Amino acid sequence: MFTHHVQIRVTYADTDQMGYVYYGNYARYYEIGRVEALRSLGFSYKEMEASGIMMPVYENNSRYLQPALYDDLLTVKVLVKTPPSVRMVFEYEICNEAGTLLHTGVTTLVFFNRQTNKPCRAPGVLLERLKPFFA
Amino acid sequence: MFTHHVQIRVTYADTDQMGYVYYGNYARYYEIGRVEALRSLGFSYKEMEASGIMMPVYENNSRYLQPALYDDLLTVKVLVKTPPSVRMVFEYEICNEAGTLLHTGVTTLVFFNRQTNKPCRAPGVLLERLKPFFA
Amino acid sequence: MFTHHVQIRVTYADTDQMGYVYYGNYARYYEIGRVEALRSLGFSYKEMEASGIMMPVYENNSRYLQPALYDDLLTVKVLVKTPPSVRMVFEYEICNEAGTLLHTGVTTLVFFNRQTNKPCRAPGVLLERLKPFFA
Amino acid sequence: MFTHHVQIRVTYADTDQMGYVYYGNYARYYEIGRVEALRSLGFSYKEMEASGIMMPVYENNSRYLQPALYDDLLTVKVLVKTPPSVRMVFEYEICNEAGTLLHTGVTTLVFFNRQTNKPCRAPGVLLERLKPFFA
Repeated sequence: MFTHHVQIRVTYADTDQMGYVYYGNYARYYEIGRVEALRSLGFSYKEMEASGIMMPVYENNSRYLQPALYDDLLTVKVLVKTPPSVRMVFEYEICNEAGTLLHTGVTTLVFFNRQTNKPCRAPGVLLERLKPFFA
Repeated sequence: MFTHHVQIRVTYADTDQMGYVYYGNYARYYEIGRVEALRSLGFSYKEMEASGIMMPVYENNSRYLQPALYDDLLTVKVLVKTPPSVRMVFEYEICNEAGTLLHTGVTTLVFFNRQTNKPCRAPGVLLERLKPFFA
Repeated sequence: MFTHHVQIRVTYADTDQMGYVYYGNYARYYEIGRVEALRSLGFSYKEMEASGIMMPVYENNSRYLQPALYDDLLTVKVLVKTPPSVRMVFEYEICNEAGTLLHTGVTTLVFFNRQTNKPCRAPGVLLERLKPFFA
Repeated sequence: MFTHHVQIRVTYADTDQMGYVYYGNYARYYEIGRVEALRSLGFSYKEMEASGIMMPVYENNSRYLQPALYDDLLTVKVLVKTPPSVRMVFEYEICNEAGTLLHTGVTTLVFFNRQTNKPCRAPGVLLERLKPFFA
């Protein structure tokens, strides 16, 4: 299993009039978690996309256990439990500073070749970087 | 079953550099669908919240079948298949102008009493307005 | 002068924990106003962009006179006071249902040729459609 | 003069189909800059708001000189050139990693007492913390 975590401060922009983080804004937290998890492996999402492979989201499931609040310093833990193939599944656990689990999520992304306009396998470089975590 | 649909034009703000609607932005489309579905019953979410009952999202599941694109005129169909209790489940089917199904989603919301700070039953008025659809 | 107006319902997503529309979200309202104003002339922003000319924003000035609130049905009035050249200036006046002026804004956009990567003149078709308003 | 700077990574969520940061999303960058500038003084916006004083935005002016792009690591420099009174003016200069100035902005916020529902003076604590910078 490969895991990584990042810290994200909740902005005013993220909140709604309930005083909670608006439910659609977790998608951005997930994205930051994913991209930084890959960067920690020395793998740049930006470069992959520049090379012609992009990763649209195919499925997303979210559970809102407790609200995240303005100015909370969240820890987003990203978990990759299986090596990617044509798809890559990221799980997330989001806690506040007190360590309370506020939120869980699972996102399935698809590798997609922009030139052929078809799904494709995960890039070899990414598979290599992830290999040690699934040995 | 109670159903309602609304039309939403995809803005530039909704898109990302892939040229797709960013995956977190469907949450707003769902919200517009839900609130307008309730309004079509003569029920105002705003008034319910002013009366002390709010509806935070507890769970959200989304499937991105085909990308929604800039300036698409989307039809968001909202389906309520069971009468609300402490929870209310909304399903969504989003099509483009050609009638192609692009996206499906399911959101579970909880009725929550702000004074007692506890979950509560759906307001009687809402249950009454929905009754004819579940007879 | 060319004017057009659209109605926009404030969503929960637009609000922040102050209970106001977050100040960055007016940009979307302006965008909807601009694009629908052009569409009312029979001119499609999407088609212009597909033809290789895009309109990035160069300058934006906003005044927040009174807060727009959740579920407000806003009227966004768009005003074009001078014919476009390399730039096009849009002004906005946003009122609530009571007719109270909540917000004013001015956005300057630039016509930009994606192939030459340089600013360019407004498309002839757009100038023609606007001509009657500046005679 | 008081200055502070923060670094912000451009997310996919921030971009639009032009491949630029959407013009409304700079408001969030400004907000992060402002709040972290205040935090660096030992002053918490969150606590001020909890004490009954909030700071709605009254005016915002933005210049988009060059586009910020996906994955750019931006430096947002915040400048406070005059001590706050009933208003507080923040200026911003946003550069990319190459040091190119991409964007400038100015935001005027108002101190507002939620109980009296009227504008008020800046909290004494904030004025004290800022004093050394305007001596």
